[in-house]
Amino acid sequence: LLALTILGNNSAIPAYGRNPTAQVVQTNDENYLIDCGEGTQLQLSKYSIKRSKINKIFISHLHGDHYFGLIGLISSMGLIGRTNDLHIYAPAPLEQILHLHLQAANTTLPYQLYFHALKEEGEIANDKKISVKAFKVNHRIECFGFLFTEKKNPRKILPERAKAYEIPEAYYGELQKGKDYTTKKGTIISNEDVTEAATDARCYAYCADTIYDETIIPKIKGAHLIYHETTYLKDLEERAAARFHCTTVQAGNIAKLAGVEKLLIGHFSSKYELLDDFLAETKTVFENTELALEGACFKI
Amino acid sequence: LLALTILGNNSAIPAYGRNPTAQVVQTNDENYLIDCGEGTQLQLSKYSIKRSKINKIFISHLHGDHYFGLIGLISSMGLIGRTNDLHIYAPAPLEQILHLHLQAANTTLPYQLYFHALKEEGEIANDKKISVKAFKVNHRIECFGFLFTEKKNPRKILPERAKAYEIPEAYYGELQKGKDYTTKKGTIISNEDVTEAATDARCYAYCADTIYDETIIPKIKGAHLIYHETTYLKDLEERAAARFHCTTVQAGNIAKLAGVEKLLIGHFSSKYELLDDFLAETKTVFENTELALEGACFKI
Repeated sequence: LLALTILGNNSAIPAYGRNPTAQVVQTNDENYLIDCGEGTQLQLSKYSIKRSKINKIFISHLHGDHYFGLIGLISSMGLIGRTNDLHIYAPAPLEQILHLHLQAANTTLPYQLYFHALKEEGEIANDKKISVKAFKVNHRIECFGFLFTEKKNPRKILPERAKAYEIPEAYYGELQKGKDYTTKKGTIISNEDVTEAATDARCYAYCADTIYDETIIPKIKGAHLIYHETTYLKDLEERAAARFHCTTVQAGNIAKLAGVEKLLIGHFSSKYELLDDFLAETKTVFENTELALEGACFKI
Repeated sequence: LLALTILGNNSAIPAYGRNPTAQVVQTNDENYLIDCGEGTQLQLSKYSIKRSKINKIFISHLHGDHYFGLIGLISSMGLIGRTNDLHIYAPAPLEQILHLHLQAANTTLPYQLYFHALKEEGEIANDKKISVKAFKVNHRIECFGFLFTEKKNPRKILPERAKAYEIPEAYYGELQKGKDYTTKKGTIISNEDVTEAATDARCYAYCADTIYDETIIPKIKGAHLIYHETTYLKDLEERAAARFHCTTVQAGNIAKLAGVEKLLIGHFSSKYELLDDFLAETKTVFENTELALEGACFKI
């Protein structure tokens, strides 16, 4: 149900064919776009991800490699005649920038654009399938991570059992919520007798750009999948800190301390052509690590 | 000396792997960038065009497919430590947009950015090798074409002849400007006797996005090479006019009436996958036409 597709993994300047940051969380119904570096609309086409299913876009911070592709995507959505609402969650200054771009082109979008300025931590979006929380991370400018949690499926009814107890179908909705059933004679039928547990709610944490900071651990604890930046290899820990970025080993530590299932690493500095060492170094700390390679799709 | 490289030729929405508009006029010393659609910095890398030799950027108008890549290019130039001045010639509203983008990222560029707001027609840039004039074209929003004229080389001195007349070398600069020489005895040595004519000054006209408009003809008359948009094939003349664009046949007409040597066509609508008909239709009116294909380099 929940999958994550990587559209870009490079930091700052595009290099070695690697694009700037963008990712898509996918459900059957919707695509949730996280960050939108320059060229994201082309990457969406390349990997056949439907723009029409993107209704919510989350921008972590206003460094260009995380949002310079947004105005192009918004404009193209208008040109192809989109009518569905589009929601953007981003630091406040982006609103005026988008407004000026549209004004300069004398553009009126054929759809409604809702801008939600990120301020505090907490839930920012909530729909049928997914809840999204924003959490602050420590970067050079205001920056947010995002926690995507699948809504816990309702309990699954065991129809043979429910029929055997003659529970009316009109009550099935209550059973799914976990309620017991009381017969006309007053006998209590335990919910566990006629339903089985929902599958576990899956959870993905996007930790954006950040300096090494253990205070994010309680915010992402127990996530099934996390993405954590590794701009530099471990020998450049000082440079990483000076620029509010992380190394391989640091990302591995965060994953280990947060007790997550799997770690994706990305936001590689343009100084590196080969990425093998990123994976090897991170795995020394946290074994279940993968590179956030472009086009790769991960089950959450 | 003067060449033109195409980096993008598509209109509005990127399609079929075609990128939005960007072109580079190249001399031995400098690259002059014309328009800068999203992804232009990647196209520059792809076609090995040095960013460091770009000192002047000309933006025709503020529709996104002509400038959404500019902020990314400007930022990257800063990140790689550029120190040379950069001059941008564009419609006025772009200045504030660039300013807000830089401010949002808390970026101070390590080089000086000079913004020149386009207002009137006339010469806007003038350096050792090239003069650039802006001219107005008729589009949905304020829009400018650009005329690049190579500076006429100075007259070439014939050293044997000049020595035979005992003309002092200190006077050679005046000879190059076309002046005659008067000997101490008062004899006039005709300039034509000791120099030969410079090669013809080459001229390229970029006509930007425009409705069919014969009033641009005197502005581009006699250019060696022109680029004229052909957003649509000839059967969509009405749609072209409604959107302030042109068809193949209309671009051919402009080239013919302006008496240019060669015509490049581009800005193809995303509705067309194949471009063959664009070339065939335009050639029925103006034979020396070529498609502005990405990566193609034309001698001016």
